[in-house]
Amino acid sequence: MDAADTPKQPTQPRRRYAKGEATRQEILDRTIEVLAKRGAQRTSLRAIASEIGITHAALTYYFGSLDQLLIEVYRHWDTREDPPPSLTRAPVEGMLDSARGNRDVPGLVQLYTSLCAAALDDNRGVVQDYIAQRFARIREEVAHSVRRCQTEGSIRSDIDPHAAAALIIAASDGLQIQWLLDGDAPQTEALALLQKVLS
Amino acid sequence: MDAADTPKQPTQPRRRYAKGEATRQEILDRTIEVLAKRGAQRTSLRAIASEIGITHAALTYYFGSLDQLLIEVYRHWDTREDPPPSLTRAPVEGMLDSARGNRDVPGLVQLYTSLCAAALDDNRGVVQDYIAQRFARIREEVAHSVRRCQTEGSIRSDIDPHAAAALIIAASDGLQIQWLLDGDAPQTEALALLQKVLS
Repeated sequence: MDAADTPKQPTQPRRRYAKGEATRQEILDRTIEVLAKRGAQRTSLRAIASEIGITHAALTYYFGSLDQLLIEVYRHWDTREDPPPSLTRAPVEGMLDSARGNRDVPGLVQLYTSLCAAALDDNRGVVQDYIAQRFARIREEVAHSVRRCQTEGSIRSDIDPHAAAALIIAASDGLQIQWLLDGDAPQTEALALLQKVLS
Repeated sequence: MDAADTPKQPTQPRRRYAKGEATRQEILDRTIEVLAKRGAQRTSLRAIASEIGITHAALTYYFGSLDQLLIEVYRHWDTREDPPPSLTRAPVEGMLDSARGNRDVPGLVQLYTSLCAAALDDNRGVVQDYIAQRFARIREEVAHSVRRCQTEGSIRSDIDPHAAAALIIAASDGLQIQWLLDGDAPQTEALALLQKVLS
């Protein structure tokens, strides 16, 4: 079919799609604000809808369920950097930079920790799948980065890259929580220590 | 006052206290079962009361609030070993033993992770205080254990014990989550790696 015959058609669905995307985006942005105020654990799709001023039906239309909305909010923030820091820098340094950035968004660290807790609940399979796959993917990325550092000589060669990756990610996740709860917790020192003993 | 004058009195309050304690204990045990089934995040004092077959008023009388109940359930389990493993064994080994034990109680790991997420929510001060104080206490215990290992020569001496303690605890917390989500995650290998690079 010749595009000249139907000049309007190719743009209309796209415009509608673009409008849907913009609405979706706006909901995600406003949900971040709501979660920062009320936490991710004791809320509901209905409460978020009411707070951001849309109907429960509209929120359900766009995201399906509270867990889906929470995942999308986190994913939106998590993938804002391209390529991910774990691929471009030395792995512990990348984690240190992320940790520094996360000081400004404690609500999102809380959302992440909350999603990790939810992932351990067998009744919340959609969160479980998302978090399990995210860990598997990041372990791969960090292991790749560890291997690169081993070739360059900045990480000792007698270390299994996969075990190192799991360790670096766990340390980074756990230290972030300790630090947000107690500004005096030695987060930077602990990550620097990890870098030192791995090198 | 002579005890012989009032033979019943010293025992009655104790018996009442003992009965209260027994009830409290039974509530804690049954709550663990309920949390294992429905998770710690999307529940309420009312739902737990209904599930364990007591009134909401009685549950409130014994524990005050859902957060208090969740803290007491976790504390009850957390303090079951005396002295804590972090004081009696090499620190990473102690964490490895805890991690092995925790495989059998995923519900309690979920409760712990959930409490950590709740502690990052400023609206839940009672959880925040409990978890922040717990981290501070365990960091002290593990740092003490690191110092002992440094004296004995099993941990390298050019390491700050407080930074090492924060790192060991964070690694242990984070690896536990990765492992529960994916039995193939290299939890044991990562903790063994930490022990190797610290020694």
